Amino acid sequence: MRTAPGRRGDYRWFLAMPTRWMDNDIYGHMNNVHHYSFFDTLVARFLLSHGVLDLAASEEVGLVVETGCRYHAPLTFPDEITGGLRVTRLGESSITYGLALFRSGEDSAAAEGHFTHVYVKRSAQKQTVPLPAALRTAAEALQA
Amino acid sequence: MRTAPGRRGDYRWFLAMPTRWMDNDIYGHMNNVHHYSFFDTLVARFLLSHGVLDLAASEEVGLVVETGCRYHAPLTFPDEITGGLRVTRLGESSITYGLALFRSGEDSAAAEGHFTHVYVKRSAQKQTVPLPAALRTAAEALQA
Amino acid sequence: MRTAPGRRGDYRWFLAMPTRWMDNDIYGHMNNVHHYSFFDTLVARFLLSHGVLDLAASEEVGLVVETGCRYHAPLTFPDEITGGLRVTRLGESSITYGLALFRSGEDSAAAEGHFTHVYVKRSAQKQTVPLPAALRTAAEALQA
Amino acid sequence: MRTAPGRRGDYRWFLAMPTRWMDNDIYGHMNNVHHYSFFDTLVARFLLSHGVLDLAASEEVGLVVETGCRYHAPLTFPDEITGGLRVTRLGESSITYGLALFRSGEDSAAAEGHFTHVYVKRSAQKQTVPLPAALRTAAEALQA
Repeated sequence: MRTAPGRRGDYRWFLAMPTRWMDNDIYGHMNNVHHYSFFDTLVARFLLSHGVLDLAASEEVGLVVETGCRYHAPLTFPDEITGGLRVTRLGESSITYGLALFRSGEDSAAAEGHFTHVYVKRSAQKQTVPLPAALRTAAEALQA
Repeated sequence: MRTAPGRRGDYRWFLAMPTRWMDNDIYGHMNNVHHYSFFDTLVARFLLSHGVLDLAASEEVGLVVETGCRYHAPLTFPDEITGGLRVTRLGESSITYGLALFRSGEDSAAAEGHFTHVYVKRSAQKQTVPLPAALRTAAEALQA
Repeated sequence: MRTAPGRRGDYRWFLAMPTRWMDNDIYGHMNNVHHYSFFDTLVARFLLSHGVLDLAASEEVGLVVETGCRYHAPLTFPDEITGGLRVTRLGESSITYGLALFRSGEDSAAAEGHFTHVYVKRSAQKQTVPLPAALRTAAEALQA
Repeated sequence: MRTAPGRRGDYRWFLAMPTRWMDNDIYGHMNNVHHYSFFDTLVARFLLSHGVLDLAASEEVGLVVETGCRYHAPLTFPDEITGGLRVTRLGESSITYGLALFRSGEDSAAAEGHFTHVYVKRSAQKQTVPLPAALRTAAEALQA
């Protein structure tokens, strides 16, 4: 029933992201919510590093319309996590990222998810716009 | 492409959950991560209120294996959110909840998601166990 | 060495705030960080309810310059917390709130803190401004 | 009224800690609550790296009795933060850490705080115990 975990080779762009004490919950592992904070940060850092997103000035922004996560194995503070990113769907005004969290030194993902952005005008968030050109270029290089 | 939002009538068990200032992000709406904190709390409160979960004593606990969320409309601090819960799949040792977040006074869900628990021994989390009887009884009453 | 906890009668304005599952940490109690999320929300809801803060439109905003908390007793999900607020110092452009978190049904605070805002122009956050008149009026009624 | 910020030379032990997207609030800077998550992590990582804390096995744990923070300058995702730690008070069963958050490349602290642990039996948290010997040794080397 549970899909086999992906591997580092399935992903295209990586970022080291340490855990915080508060990520652990009462069962002693990272709470399921925090995985999304890592996904969120991974996408934002990808966009920032490729000049797609300017937090103050961007007039077009990605609106999150869908996210999901499958949890293969526990992550635990003080793990150093490596986040992996790839692009699984590139539409006219939307993009879906495939995301993974790897424990330090492990090749098999502890968690994998997806994250879909629809691009809209920042000032009128119901109006979709084409994906920014810089994003399309960067994303094409990361397609699975 | 985006599914039509569910309505209150599609859900079976409800809980009022206020937002916190910190839930809003730089775009002035609740960040996509926090929706999962509401889902997480909704499931835990459902379990506690039906005597299924005892945080200190339960020897069998639900391990989260998959979650997901579709974002239909923004939620924003200081919204009072009503969480809705139903059971969409009841297996031998796993259960999937359907979850929704409604803005105060609105019948159409601002966000909807799912959340799958597999029951395991707390002391040996790789060993699945049958769903606790009290959970099965409570869950059957909430099936969609 | 530890100060005696304050009581409900020491505070002037109250707000019910439920805990979330994620607030508990590995020791089974609310992590020390989350207390500040309750304080933060308590101040914001006080300001919103008195018409002092408009998240989108306010041209003058409170910049947080100091916070603190003393932890008298554990708080634990699923506690319903009552937050208490009073004003302990009212300056020309700054205001300090005294804050408390009470467990449901208890008169003695589980945690108490302070929170100091300096008012600045939203567009130029180094320029202090006098406290908004509506805030001064509301605050004078809550002085300890 | 506001104290002059400390410098890197005032602290004894350092840790790099990146920000997360979610740390920013509606005003575009790190929300005042998250500073405590950095403090919390800094202390835990200090304890783990000196063999004082074993998350699963430690029979004596530090109970947080007081924390505080002064905010000198904004921190903003995607800042890389360097946390600094020193010991400002070493008692029989309690220890107070002085903590600072520095922006990458800056010598002056963006925020400074304190954090007091009282050591107790994990199983009976009202019973204080002497500071663990390994902690006392490590702490003496970090006294300001």
